[in-house]
Amino acid sequence: MVLGKVMGSVWATHKEAGMDQLKLLLIQPLDFNGRAQGSTMIAADRIGAGIGEHVIVSRGNPARMLFDGRNVPIDAIVVGIVDGIELGDVKLSFDTEGGEEHD
Amino acid sequence: MVLGKVMGSVWATHKEAGMDQLKLLLIQPLDFNGRAQGSTMIAADRIGAGIGEHVIVSRGNPARMLFDGRNVPIDAIVVGIVDGIELGDVKLSFDTEGGEEHD
Amino acid sequence: MVLGKVMGSVWATHKEAGMDQLKLLLIQPLDFNGRAQGSTMIAADRIGAGIGEHVIVSRGNPARMLFDGRNVPIDAIVVGIVDGIELGDVKLSFDTEGGEEHD
Amino acid sequence: MVLGKVMGSVWATHKEAGMDQLKLLLIQPLDFNGRAQGSTMIAADRIGAGIGEHVIVSRGNPARMLFDGRNVPIDAIVVGIVDGIELGDVKLSFDTEGGEEHD
Amino acid sequence: MVLGKVMGSVWATHKEAGMDQLKLLLIQPLDFNGRAQGSTMIAADRIGAGIGEHVIVSRGNPARMLFDGRNVPIDAIVVGIVDGIELGDVKLSFDTEGGEEHD
Repeated sequence: MVLGKVMGSVWATHKEAGMDQLKLLLIQPLDFNGRAQGSTMIAADRIGAGIGEHVIVSRGNPARMLFDGRNVPIDAIVVGIVDGIELGDVKLSFDTEGGEEHD
Repeated sequence: MVLGKVMGSVWATHKEAGMDQLKLLLIQPLDFNGRAQGSTMIAADRIGAGIGEHVIVSRGNPARMLFDGRNVPIDAIVVGIVDGIELGDVKLSFDTEGGEEHD
Repeated sequence: MVLGKVMGSVWATHKEAGMDQLKLLLIQPLDFNGRAQGSTMIAADRIGAGIGEHVIVSRGNPARMLFDGRNVPIDAIVVGIVDGIELGDVKLSFDTEGGEEHD
Repeated sequence: MVLGKVMGSVWATHKEAGMDQLKLLLIQPLDFNGRAQGSTMIAADRIGAGIGEHVIVSRGNPARMLFDGRNVPIDAIVVGIVDGIELGDVKLSFDTEGGEEHD
Repeated sequence: MVLGKVMGSVWATHKEAGMDQLKLLLIQPLDFNGRAQGSTMIAADRIGAGIGEHVIVSRGNPARMLFDGRNVPIDAIVVGIVDGIELGDVKLSFDTEGGEEHD
């Protein structure tokens, strides 16, 4: 999975079968120090991630498997909203504005 | 998924089984500011995306799963034509010439 | 999929199960202007692509799915031999020497 | 698979279905000389890898297949804790602090 | 698939289910001129590839599919030991020390 930050959302009225009623978020992947890392991506979201929040994105088949019985042609989905990370002895909490607070 | 812009199309008369009657588009992936990002790709399209339009491309198995009962050996497909994106508080609409308009 | 050019072939007498009698080509991925882009790859070919030809390569599961009932452990296959591409208003035809001709 | 080093962990209270009770580690991929290589990633871990340890991470479907009967939407998992590597004639042992010792 | 050179091996006593008795090799991907290209990787090997040999590595599901009835959580496997490549009119043979000989 990748750590990322929700930068916004995308809307599309003309879509493939199975893409209806999906929230699609713009994600900037981050390294563990919060710096932008790698290419931006679009991920589906069912757990209510908001702009500025840090999230975990899973790619490939797992994104599709969550929709039992539906053919949803996505390749990335938000699987968690990050509360914080622990790097060595340092704990970092993330608030919803995307800022970082030391515990 | 990735945000991309339709740059053109590719034609091939000699093809693998299952590739007949597929429209194949040339896609330039973009970052959220509309700048080229990463390697160009070829994606199948069933929803009528045109040159200059911004699209969402899904890669891997999802591309193939949309063709029930057919063995279609593709690894990327256009799953949406983008009307616009919302980056923080800024809304960007895309017209079919690929230009950007602020709402 | 990716646009690529056939640069040569590879031979191997000692192989995994399912790799027998497969033609394996050396592929240089190209951008839409014909410039080398990204890492070189090896792809299986069943449609007779020759050295210097431009091809479409599909990666991942699709490569394997074409071999019904056989377990073929490949992750890339040539799915089309490119006749030409259309970039905006410009049409480019590819001949088998890999040169480009404007229509 | 990739060689990586465990840098820390991530916690998230709001998660997708199937993500409960998963330990998620922050991984820095390394080249064979122990230098950082490529983008950082998040991987599930069921075998008790600790901070500073060198691990082998497998990506894609294998990560999910280990959870029989559960739909676990992950795309990377730790599949081994590395004792050491052999590069040509040189053997390197890894201790849990991530240091390297020559045998 | 990718062309690569076997640089060594990795050992791990603490492993996920299904990883027992697998030989894991350290692979440096190469371009067609034998230069290092892209990130190093770890691949399973069942066909006896040795240090210094040039190999073909397949990634993703194919790696796992070769183990019928076993759940083997790998994402890369050696599918061939390269005897040589043909680049245009030039044939290159590879010996096991990794040197190159012109035919």
